[in-house]
Amino acid sequence: MNFLSLFCAFLCLTPALAIWPRPQNLTTGSTPLRLSSTFSIKFSGIKQVPSDLSDAAKRTSSFLKTDKLQSLTPDRGASSSSAVHSARTLSSLTLKLNSGATVNSLSSEATQGLGTQDESYSLQVPANGGSAVLSANTALGLFRGLTTFGQLWYDLDGTTYTLQAPIQVTDAPAYPYRGFMLDTSRNYFPVADIKRTLDAMSWVKINHLHWHVVDSQSFPLIVPGFEEISQKGAYSSAQVYTPADVKDIVSYAAARGIDVMAEIDTPGHTAVISQSHPEHIACPDATPWAQFANEPPAGQLRFASPATTTFTANLIKAASSMFPSKLFSTGGDELNQNCYTKDAQTQQDLASQGKTLEQALDTFTQATHSVLLDAGKTPVVWEEMVLEHQVQLSNETIVLVWISSDDVAAVAQKGFRLIHAASDFFYLDCGGGGWVGANINGNSWCDPFKTWQKAYSFNPTANLTDDQAKLVVGGQQLLWTEQSGPSNLDPIVWPRAAASAELFWSGPGGDVRTALPRLHDVAYRFVQRGVKAISLQPQWCALRPGACDIDA
Amino acid sequence: MNFLSLFCAFLCLTPALAIWPRPQNLTTGSTPLRLSSTFSIKFSGIKQVPSDLSDAAKRTSSFLKTDKLQSLTPDRGASSSSAVHSARTLSSLTLKLNSGATVNSLSSEATQGLGTQDESYSLQVPANGGSAVLSANTALGLFRGLTTFGQLWYDLDGTTYTLQAPIQVTDAPAYPYRGFMLDTSRNYFPVADIKRTLDAMSWVKINHLHWHVVDSQSFPLIVPGFEEISQKGAYSSAQVYTPADVKDIVSYAAARGIDVMAEIDTPGHTAVISQSHPEHIACPDATPWAQFANEPPAGQLRFASPATTTFTANLIKAASSMFPSKLFSTGGDELNQNCYTKDAQTQQDLASQGKTLEQALDTFTQATHSVLLDAGKTPVVWEEMVLEHQVQLSNETIVLVWISSDDVAAVAQKGFRLIHAASDFFYLDCGGGGWVGANINGNSWCDPFKTWQKAYSFNPTANLTDDQAKLVVGGQQLLWTEQSGPSNLDPIVWPRAAASAELFWSGPGGDVRTALPRLHDVAYRFVQRGVKAISLQPQWCALRPGACDIDA
Repeated sequence: MNFLSLFCAFLCLTPALAIWPRPQNLTTGSTPLRLSSTFSIKFSGIKQVPSDLSDAAKRTSSFLKTDKLQSLTPDRGASSSSAVHSARTLSSLTLKLNSGATVNSLSSEATQGLGTQDESYSLQVPANGGSAVLSANTALGLFRGLTTFGQLWYDLDGTTYTLQAPIQVTDAPAYPYRGFMLDTSRNYFPVADIKRTLDAMSWVKINHLHWHVVDSQSFPLIVPGFEEISQKGAYSSAQVYTPADVKDIVSYAAARGIDVMAEIDTPGHTAVISQSHPEHIACPDATPWAQFANEPPAGQLRFASPATTTFTANLIKAASSMFPSKLFSTGGDELNQNCYTKDAQTQQDLASQGKTLEQALDTFTQATHSVLLDAGKTPVVWEEMVLEHQVQLSNETIVLVWISSDDVAAVAQKGFRLIHAASDFFYLDCGGGGWVGANINGNSWCDPFKTWQKAYSFNPTANLTDDQAKLVVGGQQLLWTEQSGPSNLDPIVWPRAAASAELFWSGPGGDVRTALPRLHDVAYRFVQRGVKAISLQPQWCALRPGACDIDA
Repeated sequence: MNFLSLFCAFLCLTPALAIWPRPQNLTTGSTPLRLSSTFSIKFSGIKQVPSDLSDAAKRTSSFLKTDKLQSLTPDRGASSSSAVHSARTLSSLTLKLNSGATVNSLSSEATQGLGTQDESYSLQVPANGGSAVLSANTALGLFRGLTTFGQLWYDLDGTTYTLQAPIQVTDAPAYPYRGFMLDTSRNYFPVADIKRTLDAMSWVKINHLHWHVVDSQSFPLIVPGFEEISQKGAYSSAQVYTPADVKDIVSYAAARGIDVMAEIDTPGHTAVISQSHPEHIACPDATPWAQFANEPPAGQLRFASPATTTFTANLIKAASSMFPSKLFSTGGDELNQNCYTKDAQTQQDLASQGKTLEQALDTFTQATHSVLLDAGKTPVVWEEMVLEHQVQLSNETIVLVWISSDDVAAVAQKGFRLIHAASDFFYLDCGGGGWVGANINGNSWCDPFKTWQKAYSFNPTANLTDDQAKLVVGGQQLLWTEQSGPSNLDPIVWPRAAASAELFWSGPGGDVRTALPRLHDVAYRFVQRGVKAISLQPQWCALRPGACDIDA
């Protein structure tokens, strides 16, 4: 046995199939199997296959033909040629329901509400050819299984094959919320970029787009009844999301098992509203900005004003009704007190009502949240709303922990459900240098760069009691776009954002050592599918699992 | 006077034309001027216009039509509409030689040798319409002037205009070497990516591509007479540069005023040669790699072997003859001594010749450099060859300082010309996290990320005497590609690499505060031309010069 075969004995026989996220249960064999030239995906025993589900099956069929991904080995599969070409053929994949003959649409299941969904599935790919079987209780389960099926195969000279049949998978997510957050305010992203991102998210079973759609810099969302805000506050009339765009994005997402949780960040992060509604904004464009905001431009909603409160509640009602999701974020981060201290109107409003700033914030928050609760939606907020302010929140409220992972326990202690989004693990924008001007040696505020390994190694239940651990609904990586735009969206996000996708699907405890070869596969497959994922290592390393490990 | 017009009084009237790099002399007025719909670029008094120069003029004409770059102001130029549409028109740009009627081709001038070139030009754009005049002594000078002319204009509803006529420029570079280094070994880049990069380089007057074409991980360069190296050492038969590709790249570069300085890094960084020539490589793929190399895989040329020395000299002769450049780099960085200590053949070679390792390295270096000197080429080496080793080098040798800017003075003290390439200022790959596997908290070895501000603020003559300062031929930013590939080439390089382009063209002392608005312009114009430069700031900031400065 030479070195290479010893190497292979160690690695090639492990169930290292490039499935991402790692299934809960996976067994593989060592029999080559190839797809028949007439391979097809079929539905069995389902009365009326929803069109979004049959479309998903068609996309999977298409990827099987177009991925053309060679195996990540030094010879890219060439030495397996005779085994591949003499392998038995798989003629079809059959999709079945575990019981019953009817199934909801994938889109309706995707948006029906956090924690109500059943994404489990099981998949059998036999070694002796014939048909593979994918079964689930729901359309969503079948969709997740299709995604897995699409990751089993490599290409060799036009033949689509695996060397590891039979393959058995039973799978279900560890957490119901697996997200990705995109900020479309600091810089604008065309609809096509968002759709491509949704595709990529679905390939690693991410099921929530947290869309931080507006902020102080620009307001690209055209909200019916509030058109003037984007008319004056979008970067241009072309850099907007129309109601039709939103519908398009939302349905595109839902058809890929993704719920779109939009955010109108309030009462801070709203400077741009001053362009159309100066009466509602305190300290608009105030300088020096550093005294009035965490970044320019300064400007916050006058939440002590009853008129502003009504305006905001109506805005949130109108904006949230554009999205079918049961989740909607009202933000609540980084309130600047000095802005209000210096704002005569706010001081007058407080005085006339005999309220403190915190009491006024409570009134405001209850008003803006009640429109969501009335609509059967769950308010989502950034952590300051429970850790820094004295506001009454519905028990249903979900809290995004962002400032530090150290704050998780404090949020859980308050009894709120929470989404992991901590900057010290999950911020994709960190480490790109300071973006503020006239600052030669400025570094990123959240240095260093957050590697995929960092996100991957996060422990979602660290420092939590068993009861508190149940409050964790999942987590996400996030892209704030001060230094990002369409030019670097793909490479700054992928394959890094797959790290949290696996963490919150497969559960914690994954090993970066065995994950890396699979993550290379994700990146290389994404590139084949038109998503510009970066190379995590020299290709030499990507083709030789383990050879570039620190101790290799 | 309201706040906005006060703001404009301060900024809008300064000669902030978005020319990058900043010309040595620039005066501007405040008269609107637009290009005639029949605008053309003409040559006057030149007997036979070289085709590469007339092609360059055609490209400039094309960019004037296709850039469609709106001014970076909040209203994107709309408020200037009547001024623009009633402006006088410029009918043509006339290119002239300062004396004589004949001119060399741009391509021949681009490759004729460092320091022999005259890139100076002058440009007059009158305020009253008519014709602009660009004059120079050389094709290269005319080309640089065309590049400047292409940066003067914005688009408003299909009209190409400036608000700052008349414009006078006299210009010439501070340093003859302004480079960009690309590593095509760790990950491969298709020819189209390299050509797009050459285009982008030329737009900011970078005149050298330092092409680190091969390394330990892969050998994509097909060298005539040494085809077996790339046959076994390229990542695949598709991931190669054929002699025809090289010719294509070299001539594409030369036609854009760029000389291609190739590098065959020796004797280290050569592990991959062991695939075709195991007899020439010590410690191939030795493990643990960290004891034998700075990164995997280990393997270095057996420079104590006369046969290996001859092989290498012939390889360098063949490779260097593929490139018309007078510069060729033989590398010489990061030699690992342990590799040779443990290599029985090297120890035997040393013993039989009665040489120390350093003496053998001297013999090897003289042999490999003499083939360059014989061909009239200048050897270029990394700094270790003068600071860490005892080898005799021709006085002509140029040294790349990379380990630290602190090493510049020591290199200059030895009397060698030098190129600034220090990792602490110019490495574009730093700050992306550690790429070595099984290393959860690994950071980039050269953290933090090197911002454009960092490169821009470098002082090329710090700690040098006046005489030593004359040894500085220029500098460059560099992209090592362990974590880069075609997916992130543009966004990791641009607009950052424009920082050194201005530093070494315009000379040191530029102010990041006034540079940033112009650099936004570079980035936005690059995007219009198909190069995916990133957003350095939120668009809100890009449209409001100074408003996002740290002290604004």
